[in-house]
Amino acid sequence: MKPELMVERLDELAIELPSWGFADTGTRFGKFQQDAAAVTIEEKIADAAHVHALTGCCPTLAVHVLWDFRDDLPAARVAALAKQHGLAIGAINPNVFQDQQYKWGSLTNRSAPIRKMALDHILDSIRIGRSTGSRFLSLWFADGTNYVGQADLIERKKWMVAALRQTHAALPTNMTILLEYKPFEPAFYATDIADWGMALLLARAAGPRAKVLVDTGHHYQGANIEQIVAWLLDENMLGGFHFNDRRYADDDLTLGSVDPYQIFRIFHEIENHRFRTGRTPKIAYMVDQSHNLKPKIEAMIQTVDMAQQLYLKAALVDRPALAAAQKNEDLVRSENLVRDAFLTDVRPTLSQWRRRHHLPLDPLEAHRQSGYATRVAAERRQRHGPKGGGAYA
Amino acid sequence: MKPELMVERLDELAIELPSWGFADTGTRFGKFQQDAAAVTIEEKIADAAHVHALTGCCPTLAVHVLWDFRDDLPAARVAALAKQHGLAIGAINPNVFQDQQYKWGSLTNRSAPIRKMALDHILDSIRIGRSTGSRFLSLWFADGTNYVGQADLIERKKWMVAALRQTHAALPTNMTILLEYKPFEPAFYATDIADWGMALLLARAAGPRAKVLVDTGHHYQGANIEQIVAWLLDENMLGGFHFNDRRYADDDLTLGSVDPYQIFRIFHEIENHRFRTGRTPKIAYMVDQSHNLKPKIEAMIQTVDMAQQLYLKAALVDRPALAAAQKNEDLVRSENLVRDAFLTDVRPTLSQWRRRHHLPLDPLEAHRQSGYATRVAAERRQRHGPKGGGAYA
Amino acid sequence: MKPELMVERLDELAIELPSWGFADTGTRFGKFQQDAAAVTIEEKIADAAHVHALTGCCPTLAVHVLWDFRDDLPAARVAALAKQHGLAIGAINPNVFQDQQYKWGSLTNRSAPIRKMALDHILDSIRIGRSTGSRFLSLWFADGTNYVGQADLIERKKWMVAALRQTHAALPTNMTILLEYKPFEPAFYATDIADWGMALLLARAAGPRAKVLVDTGHHYQGANIEQIVAWLLDENMLGGFHFNDRRYADDDLTLGSVDPYQIFRIFHEIENHRFRTGRTPKIAYMVDQSHNLKPKIEAMIQTVDMAQQLYLKAALVDRPALAAAQKNEDLVRSENLVRDAFLTDVRPTLSQWRRRHHLPLDPLEAHRQSGYATRVAAERRQRHGPKGGGAYA
Amino acid sequence: MKPELMVERLDELAIELPSWGFADTGTRFGKFQQDAAAVTIEEKIADAAHVHALTGCCPTLAVHVLWDFRDDLPAARVAALAKQHGLAIGAINPNVFQDQQYKWGSLTNRSAPIRKMALDHILDSIRIGRSTGSRFLSLWFADGTNYVGQADLIERKKWMVAALRQTHAALPTNMTILLEYKPFEPAFYATDIADWGMALLLARAAGPRAKVLVDTGHHYQGANIEQIVAWLLDENMLGGFHFNDRRYADDDLTLGSVDPYQIFRIFHEIENHRFRTGRTPKIAYMVDQSHNLKPKIEAMIQTVDMAQQLYLKAALVDRPALAAAQKNEDLVRSENLVRDAFLTDVRPTLSQWRRRHHLPLDPLEAHRQSGYATRVAAERRQRHGPKGGGAYA
Repeated sequence: MKPELMVERLDELAIELPSWGFADTGTRFGKFQQDAAAVTIEEKIADAAHVHALTGCCPTLAVHVLWDFRDDLPAARVAALAKQHGLAIGAINPNVFQDQQYKWGSLTNRSAPIRKMALDHILDSIRIGRSTGSRFLSLWFADGTNYVGQADLIERKKWMVAALRQTHAALPTNMTILLEYKPFEPAFYATDIADWGMALLLARAAGPRAKVLVDTGHHYQGANIEQIVAWLLDENMLGGFHFNDRRYADDDLTLGSVDPYQIFRIFHEIENHRFRTGRTPKIAYMVDQSHNLKPKIEAMIQTVDMAQQLYLKAALVDRPALAAAQKNEDLVRSENLVRDAFLTDVRPTLSQWRRRHHLPLDPLEAHRQSGYATRVAAERRQRHGPKGGGAYA
Repeated sequence: MKPELMVERLDELAIELPSWGFADTGTRFGKFQQDAAAVTIEEKIADAAHVHALTGCCPTLAVHVLWDFRDDLPAARVAALAKQHGLAIGAINPNVFQDQQYKWGSLTNRSAPIRKMALDHILDSIRIGRSTGSRFLSLWFADGTNYVGQADLIERKKWMVAALRQTHAALPTNMTILLEYKPFEPAFYATDIADWGMALLLARAAGPRAKVLVDTGHHYQGANIEQIVAWLLDENMLGGFHFNDRRYADDDLTLGSVDPYQIFRIFHEIENHRFRTGRTPKIAYMVDQSHNLKPKIEAMIQTVDMAQQLYLKAALVDRPALAAAQKNEDLVRSENLVRDAFLTDVRPTLSQWRRRHHLPLDPLEAHRQSGYATRVAAERRQRHGPKGGGAYA
Repeated sequence: MKPELMVERLDELAIELPSWGFADTGTRFGKFQQDAAAVTIEEKIADAAHVHALTGCCPTLAVHVLWDFRDDLPAARVAALAKQHGLAIGAINPNVFQDQQYKWGSLTNRSAPIRKMALDHILDSIRIGRSTGSRFLSLWFADGTNYVGQADLIERKKWMVAALRQTHAALPTNMTILLEYKPFEPAFYATDIADWGMALLLARAAGPRAKVLVDTGHHYQGANIEQIVAWLLDENMLGGFHFNDRRYADDDLTLGSVDPYQIFRIFHEIENHRFRTGRTPKIAYMVDQSHNLKPKIEAMIQTVDMAQQLYLKAALVDRPALAAAQKNEDLVRSENLVRDAFLTDVRPTLSQWRRRHHLPLDPLEAHRQSGYATRVAAERRQRHGPKGGGAYA
Repeated sequence: MKPELMVERLDELAIELPSWGFADTGTRFGKFQQDAAAVTIEEKIADAAHVHALTGCCPTLAVHVLWDFRDDLPAARVAALAKQHGLAIGAINPNVFQDQQYKWGSLTNRSAPIRKMALDHILDSIRIGRSTGSRFLSLWFADGTNYVGQADLIERKKWMVAALRQTHAALPTNMTILLEYKPFEPAFYATDIADWGMALLLARAAGPRAKVLVDTGHHYQGANIEQIVAWLLDENMLGGFHFNDRRYADDDLTLGSVDPYQIFRIFHEIENHRFRTGRTPKIAYMVDQSHNLKPKIEAMIQTVDMAQQLYLKAALVDRPALAAAQKNEDLVRSENLVRDAFLTDVRPTLSQWRRRHHLPLDPLEAHRQSGYATRVAAERRQRHGPKGGGAYA
């Protein structure tokens, strides 16, 4: 691909940031609080706008209904606030896992009233999404069981199907359900939507505007994630991604910090799909990370930088040459055509793109020199006072 | 459940033995040859009949087209021979992985002539299956790739769909395709049918008489296999099982030798399905194990004994009581109702069933005292002479 | 083994309960609060004493310095309180992971003052242990790093060695260090004490009264835990266990709820050690579980019941017969001698033991009928008021 | 690091090729034979010399006693032949796993005569190593058990210790034992040397010239291999590496084909050790791969090229800057200093090194244009005739 085209290719890649990614998060053993961490939606919007101003590729912010909307700030006001900051509101994330009533599940709770509460919250979320102009309803369920015998797995499946159908029926025509799967945590025995096969069957049962969301940390060890992505694309069922990385479980580490080649291979399959079909798939790329140690804004900038590099590397693969090598079963050359794209340093191209868009060439350094973190840390420390870190027991 | 009913419940459970399970198998590092191992189909039938005579629950023998049929012994003769021994021929297993032309795949090979060779072999297998009265065409493919870039994963998917449709079209109405999935080995980068989701989509694309085959060793570590089984049952897509156990990879160890509770929980989900629907699902239970160290016949007897015990234990769960406990979210009682069934010693019931069917109470001991192994070892040593163990390199 | 001896064998098995196991615990996504959960050390002692009264095998209570000791209740008073309830204080658990200063580590923190704070807390814990008559100092460290490059792994190793030596130097002669290892969580890139090999080297560097603690949930998928146990025993380095179970990560589920055969095989190796050496190893058996859904007391009773059954089953293996079968390389008989012990229903023996000790035959049922849970739930609700469940972000 | 120094840094890296890497290898499902694959030691030496001539960094060839030495070709002749081709003989690999007598183990076999046969073969290997001038005795054992109860794990440990001591006693002073560990395959229940902890304890028991060999494919999923390497270096127990890659099990794929960042992080820890101690550790870098699909010579060239790139990338990390960033707990900068070295394209430096050594700039292309593969394929096809691919059953 010509360097000129490479630079333009980057214009395609928009990465949505998560509002909760600017807040303090941790592990079951506690949270290490940061003064600069955002608490309110206003602060989250400011932080996201700051990242977008520096990176130029994060025009939307995913929001979390339970944590980001409050009575004194209607949804339309949140959207307006975002707009003032140069952002749009992205995916709406209901929360049906935190409240005590969801102890035994939300949409798959045995209790019809609790199922209704969960569904109502999701329908509310759709209404909020209309007000904010969101195009995606992002659904992740903690639902599942911790012990054999705790519940009938198929009864729960049927409750999920029924509720997803009602959800889909309430969806505006410009909104898409993104249905996430996860094999473990916090349900330790059986998660109700455990893998892409279950998510695909449920999404198809829900309706045509329900697609599958792939969180890169939600697979068993050794899984070939890019093959799943390729199948979902071919089945027209890929809705989007939650980007993060992990060594063992769902560690929610920075994208590419453990296995950058894995993420590259996912982009490679997306490029393969484009090459095969001639069409550019519409995919919602979103970050979903949890930083207990890294400063939130730095981690976001680092993530976006990594995603852009890996996206560019995948675009570099000479696909006609690859197809020709494959035809000859020239295995070593085929692999090298992919590998060498990965080994190519694309930072000069990325710099060129940043220059063209009048962005800082080193967004992390620009952030550090901006004094933003120090300033908001002081403000927020004063505004919110000391925060507790939580306790395991 | 009343003891009387428990005993009858065992009448339901038929376990198919694999012809190759009586032959010498090993690892890539070599095979440890056993004199008593079967080489010819006649010997395999004799061994399987011997196991059936001792256990009373293995009336069919799965056969492997490449290894079990030869020009001088037409398929109908094989079936007749089996019948003489009191057996019927079970699943037909084509082999499209061993021959050199399948280096780059069989049904998903880029070469149309090789794809045709593979398909022709499968269509031949259907014809053999007609002659032998088989009800199942069991399909496992080694197809896949070892390196990123080696092939287009979706091109291979489409070739697989096309060939499975042709296979289904050639199927007699009383025959069912059992489509197996496997996430790794011998394809190390991407297996063309890697998980149950892929197998389900392909089986549905093939036609209504294509179902999914669950090999208990073909999952990533930590997978909740019984949940997959429950979903397949609910989707009416469960065809059967290949029974074995493993600690790490596809070790093909004796069923229940590593994790007996796992297999019990699978039977528990099958019983749940029956309790939920009032219908007994038709499932082909088959053994697929590879014994490099254990004497083959002993391993089979041990496997069947274990399967019968675990099946009985699952039947013991008091399902109405379980449903009641679940309704109360009585988690500890619910779990204990399942767990206690597992902890119950069902060997007395199994003995009662054996007595009723005039079978030896201890089939392993009966086998040892029969002198069968010693006799066939001598015969076969003389008949086949020394065998090589193979070499890694 | 004669039934009479079997019953006596159970007298050997004491299982230590953890004070934090009676408190509310959860996941990073939140806690589901229980009114009956204990908050104060007085409540924890009462709950543990209740479990011991019902099961007769939990005479000691592990305590957690940060959560269980307070200024108005000196350690000696805690020990006296326990004694009044028929309990002794077991392992002392320092906490050097929860406080904000430990963000970058405790004993392996780069900052000498913070390392000193952590060490001082551990030395304090030893003093508390002297007051309470504890025989074990149980050390688990969350220390580690989340990202490559974050720290020099070996520098951290050396700080750990230095601090453990100082800890050992301060140890009374009747106290033993139990050093725990864990491969992941909450450190996601590298845990400073990641596996048994590291724990063994560190314990040996610390001194002769430092041993390794095996938490059954702290291994990679597929690990053969019983082999590690056997090696630690042979190296005279096994100190004790933290009992729990898991499907994927460190799920802290009830012992044996996922894989009872795994725990049985651990006991089997301990029995093998006794058979081989003629000596009964001194092992601290402790529970370490985290119940977000199960009632705490019920979970403990269930755990103890399971541990007793699995211990009995392991004692049932006919070891002279096993040795004889092994000598003949009689693989199937060898395995069956072990397996059949597991398949034997030992609940009658357990009942006999309970009868002999004037314990309720069904401790769970006895607990339910005692009304204890309802009573303390009411009291504690009133005493402590509403509790928050925490939030992910 | 200055570019000039970077180029010189490459002079340090010698990678030993395995003789068996030029022969046909496969999986338990069969081998796909290649005409150009080497059969005799003469052919293997020729192939290795060809790779060394093209890459300039593979001066030694690891040999396999069972497969590479024959009566009509004394060891000294093999060494002379290698020397004629510009190579030296590297590690000597005994084989005590292939022959039928090792069914129940080699050094850990219950039978004293078989243990002696295995030990004798190893002592013979040492003698061969003396003749060939080898500096390493490389020991991998398939020894282990497939089923619980099969053997006493500690009895086997003691036999291993005894034999390794005898082996060490017979070692010339310039020879080192490299002791390999592996957690699974071909022993499926328990491998006698399962992890680095066991290997370290055994090597220390054997004597001062026994070190641990790390095969990059011999770990459980998720293991942090570079931490193990760092500990082994700090304990002065790292002997060398077997390089390969894998997605799930011990797949023996080309180095870096699945996770290049993993191998880079290993080199990074080796560089950390050098930075910390000021000493360059002596490490035997060896390839151990098994190519069923890739042409052997091409795979070797690809491997060496990848290893050189990753080695250079690790050398690029600015370690003083990293230490400074670590001191400030500047997590994002610390990680980026490591990550950015990985993202740097070092192929220009590698080209410069090749130019300086008068090597082809693209060794793979040079190999293809040399006609070597076509020529030897024709010769070897004629010399050896058709080869069988083996059969699973």
